[in-house]
Amino acid sequence: MSPSNPAPPTFRAIDVIRKKRDAAELSRAEIEGLVNAYTKGEIPDYQVSAWLMAVVLRGMTRAETAALTDAMLRSGEVLDLSSLPARKVDKHSTGGVGDKTSLVLAPLVAAAGVAVPMISGRGLGHTGGTLDKLEAIPGFNVNLPVTDFRRILETCGCCMIGQTAEIAPADRKLYALRDVTGTVESPYLICASIMSKKLAEGVDALVLDVKTGSGAFMKSQKDAAFLAELMVETGERMGKRVVALITDMDQPLGDMIGNALEVVECIEVLRGGGAGDLRDLCLELAGWMLKLGGAAETVSEGKQRSAQLISSGAALEKFRQMIELQGGDPRVIDDMKRLPQAQHTASIVSAKSGYLASVQCEQVGVACVILGGGRERKEDSVDPSVGIVLHKKVGDRVAAGEPLATIHYNAEARAARARQLIEESCRIADAPPAERRPLVHQVIGKS
Amino acid sequence: MSPSNPAPPTFRAIDVIRKKRDAAELSRAEIEGLVNAYTKGEIPDYQVSAWLMAVVLRGMTRAETAALTDAMLRSGEVLDLSSLPARKVDKHSTGGVGDKTSLVLAPLVAAAGVAVPMISGRGLGHTGGTLDKLEAIPGFNVNLPVTDFRRILETCGCCMIGQTAEIAPADRKLYALRDVTGTVESPYLICASIMSKKLAEGVDALVLDVKTGSGAFMKSQKDAAFLAELMVETGERMGKRVVALITDMDQPLGDMIGNALEVVECIEVLRGGGAGDLRDLCLELAGWMLKLGGAAETVSEGKQRSAQLISSGAALEKFRQMIELQGGDPRVIDDMKRLPQAQHTASIVSAKSGYLASVQCEQVGVACVILGGGRERKEDSVDPSVGIVLHKKVGDRVAAGEPLATIHYNAEARAARARQLIEESCRIADAPPAERRPLVHQVIGKS
Repeated sequence: MSPSNPAPPTFRAIDVIRKKRDAAELSRAEIEGLVNAYTKGEIPDYQVSAWLMAVVLRGMTRAETAALTDAMLRSGEVLDLSSLPARKVDKHSTGGVGDKTSLVLAPLVAAAGVAVPMISGRGLGHTGGTLDKLEAIPGFNVNLPVTDFRRILETCGCCMIGQTAEIAPADRKLYALRDVTGTVESPYLICASIMSKKLAEGVDALVLDVKTGSGAFMKSQKDAAFLAELMVETGERMGKRVVALITDMDQPLGDMIGNALEVVECIEVLRGGGAGDLRDLCLELAGWMLKLGGAAETVSEGKQRSAQLISSGAALEKFRQMIELQGGDPRVIDDMKRLPQAQHTASIVSAKSGYLASVQCEQVGVACVILGGGRERKEDSVDPSVGIVLHKKVGDRVAAGEPLATIHYNAEARAARARQLIEESCRIADAPPAERRPLVHQVIGKS
Repeated sequence: MSPSNPAPPTFRAIDVIRKKRDAAELSRAEIEGLVNAYTKGEIPDYQVSAWLMAVVLRGMTRAETAALTDAMLRSGEVLDLSSLPARKVDKHSTGGVGDKTSLVLAPLVAAAGVAVPMISGRGLGHTGGTLDKLEAIPGFNVNLPVTDFRRILETCGCCMIGQTAEIAPADRKLYALRDVTGTVESPYLICASIMSKKLAEGVDALVLDVKTGSGAFMKSQKDAAFLAELMVETGERMGKRVVALITDMDQPLGDMIGNALEVVECIEVLRGGGAGDLRDLCLELAGWMLKLGGAAETVSEGKQRSAQLISSGAALEKFRQMIELQGGDPRVIDDMKRLPQAQHTASIVSAKSGYLASVQCEQVGVACVILGGGRERKEDSVDPSVGIVLHKKVGDRVAAGEPLATIHYNAEARAARARQLIEESCRIADAPPAERRPLVHQVIGKS
């Protein structure tokens, strides 16, 4: 706690717990007192977990959410990137299946002259994580000290690392407690966790990709929009420009799921190809990042500029440069066989003719975890080579016997379980779905 | 967990926490699993405190409350008093100021041939505790092993002790956690805590005295009635006869507050005197205890029988016998100066003439704690000699300069603070209050 905000001499965790239990609004000093005392180990887990449950069930006001975010942010180091002349913009996604846009966006936006200081996480549950995908590139090092992070940012305009011990330690401690006490599912706590880490990066602006649909944590658009509004307002209260896009996660994004496979797909997009939905979403997000970063007047101008940076090869070259600076093998760009390859592949074919009506997206993510491509527990290791390639998007025509997906696997038993899950998650109907879900459902934020 | 109820092999505390968080009903097996695992130290405090907060905010069904009570009851020893031929009936009060009926009721009801195996608590906060009052009697031992408890019960029909380590250990552990996590104030948890301990006494029936008003934990009659109904139904589900009386605690019960002073007042009631409200409530509760204990056909017959046992001196002799059997000095009955006496007394007089319109009852309890007669923290010791004698009840006429109360004290500084609190808590008005609150507001229970 800073000297300008001394803890009240009579601060007692029990009073803060009772107040939130009784649905009263906590003061900034009370929230700071709790976060700081917990980070320092001065109050026990059992008091904080009771408080967290009261927050889950009673909610928080916007002022409380901002105070919590601020206290968590200031529990550790806030990067000072003011020595970089470029504007700093980052993107954060709430997570999904095949959600790999970060690997495209960091080099693409950096190629436009906007710095992207990106601190990412690992996959957990049915969703993938950016760090796991990057580590599929031989030699790529995501565990860089802040000095290297800054130097690489200065050199190439983007750098992608994992959370360091110095960034928002309160979030690390609180998240570990939430994970084992049933207090993860609160938009207020999710907001504070995401925003405290992202704003500790020292960015000027942030584009949030809030997923909704069967593969997202927020299944309904209403819940996704609520979280998005909360994050946008919290960021604005802290003096940042923040925009949130509610985007679709009712089927996997792109065609590939699995760490090395997703690197392949990102390189394809940076080469000007790749799946349509993935390329479209990357251009949409890049458009916003360029606008917030001052490299475009409008989103549409930002998208055009991004498309040019892809066709010119500038974005791909930026990716190559970043891989090299972070110790990875840049030859993967031209020779994707240098990425880890699974020993076997197997096709899953459609039992009947018709249209792909829906995909149980979370189940497909779970199938990838079962193959070894994700984590069920934090301490699990990940097999970068396995994964799933989907051959159809929702609404596509399918003939009986035509492949719906290809599994890349290393163990027969795992492949059998994954196959069953994928078969169950693809529903074939006689007619195409009446409506196609849009890629971007809603944009939230004034910026 | 008993072999007939094996824990589900996949029991996970996190699932039970999430289920209660999401307002679903827990199964008996889930509640038993949680209580037993916690009592054995197999799940950590921080998971249980999150669950407790979810219970406080989501509530419990009647079936859940009964399952929780049962699991807590069976976490320890359940006394088997079947060797006693008499029916066993106890009384429990939710606590108040000057609430001393247990000391009258145990010998009075035992004198009628109904056994009273009473396990009581200590004072905490503004309320007194039966054990502290009994210990004001020189030599009285409340820490008896179960074998002595049984022998004294067999000899004289009543015995009054403190909770043993064997009785409901789950409650002791859960209560300590609730106390520091803001999860005390839940009728469901209060019910399970009270009923698990009381039913572990091996009683056939139970009379509950649920207090309401400014000196009670449940300030409103609605809250008191809710708790009372919960306890009655829980007891009935467990095969016991239970009746709850919602009684008034908007002013102190009787005229005396403080441990030795309350023993004096109880002896006076057993001698046929004492304050009218205290005597009336004792007879009311005794009437119900005799009815449930089979010593009277109706409550009114039970009251008459009790009044006779007082006028005949039989109840007082029973008290003398119990004191002697529990190591106390029985001569206090005839010579009350043998009880601890404070060094000083001081009068508080009324500043003006009028009527005593109201008493802030909780404040009077706090004044007694300040004098040294109660505990602010569990580890505090208690001065048995100090206390307050009230000279007026609500509605009484008061002349300017007439004493409202007498403070019995040993330290000037404490007396000054207590005097101020008592002065502030007595409101004198020009007219008497329009309505007098009844002593018994409501009776709940079919018995």
